[in-house]
Amino acid sequence: MNELRKDPVTRRWVIISSERSKRPNNYHYDEAINDIFCPFDYGNENSTPEEIFSIRKDSTQKNKSGWNLRVVPNKFPALTTEQNFLKSGHGMYDKTSAYGYHEVIIETPEHNTSFALMKKEQISLVIKGYIERYNEIKKDKSIKYIQIFKNSGKRAGASLVHPHSQLIATPIVPYTIYEELKGAEEYFKFKDRCVFCDMIHQEIFEKSRIIMKTKNFICFAPYASRFPYELMILPIEHNEDFGSLKGKDSEIDEISEIFSHVFRKFRDILGNPSYNLVLHTAPFVNNVSDYYHWHFEIIPRTTNIAGFEWGTGFYINTVPPEQTALDLNYKEDII
Amino acid sequence: MNELRKDPVTRRWVIISSERSKRPNNYHYDEAINDIFCPFDYGNENSTPEEIFSIRKDSTQKNKSGWNLRVVPNKFPALTTEQNFLKSGHGMYDKTSAYGYHEVIIETPEHNTSFALMKKEQISLVIKGYIERYNEIKKDKSIKYIQIFKNSGKRAGASLVHPHSQLIATPIVPYTIYEELKGAEEYFKFKDRCVFCDMIHQEIFEKSRIIMKTKNFICFAPYASRFPYELMILPIEHNEDFGSLKGKDSEIDEISEIFSHVFRKFRDILGNPSYNLVLHTAPFVNNVSDYYHWHFEIIPRTTNIAGFEWGTGFYINTVPPEQTALDLNYKEDII
Repeated sequence: MNELRKDPVTRRWVIISSERSKRPNNYHYDEAINDIFCPFDYGNENSTPEEIFSIRKDSTQKNKSGWNLRVVPNKFPALTTEQNFLKSGHGMYDKTSAYGYHEVIIETPEHNTSFALMKKEQISLVIKGYIERYNEIKKDKSIKYIQIFKNSGKRAGASLVHPHSQLIATPIVPYTIYEELKGAEEYFKFKDRCVFCDMIHQEIFEKSRIIMKTKNFICFAPYASRFPYELMILPIEHNEDFGSLKGKDSEIDEISEIFSHVFRKFRDILGNPSYNLVLHTAPFVNNVSDYYHWHFEIIPRTTNIAGFEWGTGFYINTVPPEQTALDLNYKEDII
Repeated sequence: MNELRKDPVTRRWVIISSERSKRPNNYHYDEAINDIFCPFDYGNENSTPEEIFSIRKDSTQKNKSGWNLRVVPNKFPALTTEQNFLKSGHGMYDKTSAYGYHEVIIETPEHNTSFALMKKEQISLVIKGYIERYNEIKKDKSIKYIQIFKNSGKRAGASLVHPHSQLIATPIVPYTIYEELKGAEEYFKFKDRCVFCDMIHQEIFEKSRIIMKTKNFICFAPYASRFPYELMILPIEHNEDFGSLKGKDSEIDEISEIFSHVFRKFRDILGNPSYNLVLHTAPFVNNVSDYYHWHFEIIPRTTNIAGFEWGTGFYINTVPPEQTALDLNYKEDII
């Protein structure tokens, strides 16, 4: 049975997956992605667990072909709702049962495509899939955080080629979100303003790190970018809750516009790198709406993480964000 | 000119290396390590900057062959002492000059070797090199932290085959160390004991995660290991300062024993993976000696880091530390 364990020094939680325990000879870091049989293709619907949600062509049947977007439980889930959420001690250590959700958002029936190639309408469907599952799972009061993310390419941790995203919902607030919350809270106490809103204002004033701006969203390379071509996408107006996008079709289309532009640029300029797309939104705890501000982070995996970074959390970035903005900048004429 | 920039939300510092700014077409994630000409071999001493420290055979000359261990400045330093340490603002953001030290510890004249193959006496020399530079750089009162680390293999970020470690000394306390310090301080306030000491006691009591124990040191797989085969090595007796090892030859030899065992096991069982070895020791700030406890962390790079981990700091580990201990356990007869 999987369990969650907490590091007593940093208070970082880890999912220990005992039942999937691999033996040493199962490690093949350089193994190519298996792409012979794809469980996400039309006709293979019964090789995934039963679908939870789909957007389908009229008069097509659940768990059959005819879908445009399909959400299924992960076949090898890190967390499940099979056992209740229980906290316990182990000597000085803390653990909990591995309660939660682990789902796969199959973004399109097309096997060989990507955000760089997809129609914007299809990208909008993907975002709608995110919003739908987010708002549904949020109803479970044991859940404290919903992590939506996409690993694209082997370097980013993908094990299947077919375009897909994932959702993991956890019964505790994850470390990185907790750290962001604490930082944003301290800033708010000092300034009585949202730190993310202040960043947006400074970026709009300075212009030098902006990739693209729409009516409601901004995409820029953060001032203290950890990685070459790291990007952030935020709603310009203060909003802590990603789920509030539900029904706002024109806003969803703006995000698709930005994704489409950014991933085309990645393809054209960086040679289609592996990347991680990660949503940060407010955890389901009290009183964070004043100072948390939801956003996407995009990290192309052009470099590896070495010992100095692991040891210190101190990154060396050889591409200043101002250079990233020059390289990826949105110009009407080239789209 | 390089500079340090601070993320206003998490307060994580990043070294932005403007002058080394690479253009997009310089990215070759899969590029093999260049191993045609080695600047660390005997006879090539003048292709590195002038040596800072060496352990040499009698009557051999500085910057000539005849050394057993050699420390030189990094040819492409992330930080230097050329400019003074200056803090300044940039609108709402914070930055500093890139003051500090960046050195390379060339561990042996032998080009094709590793901790798994080296004699223990040679490993002891490497540790003595660490201690020597640590205690020397500590005298610079602008320095708040000294990070000693080793990237071995391409997956771990190494760009040269010849065995070497690195040292980066920073004018601020890095994020990860700051987080550990805060966690350890809170535990101390609550328990009046060092959290690392308590971990050691529980590990000795439970036995199930211990790899090896010598008179003064213990090596175990942490309860909440983030990665398969992640290890920690700590002095059993409370001690916050790695530099205090100076002159304690038998203790240094014990660490070499542990390194030798662990890296042989990595070679035999995991197929000689890339790995990071990272020293954590107290930063040069007031009053941390009660609750900080120096240690090494070892992370074999058998898996990649994916979006969920980046997004949340929440790791999924498919090898429980109890399994790691069974696999890597020290048994007299097999050494």
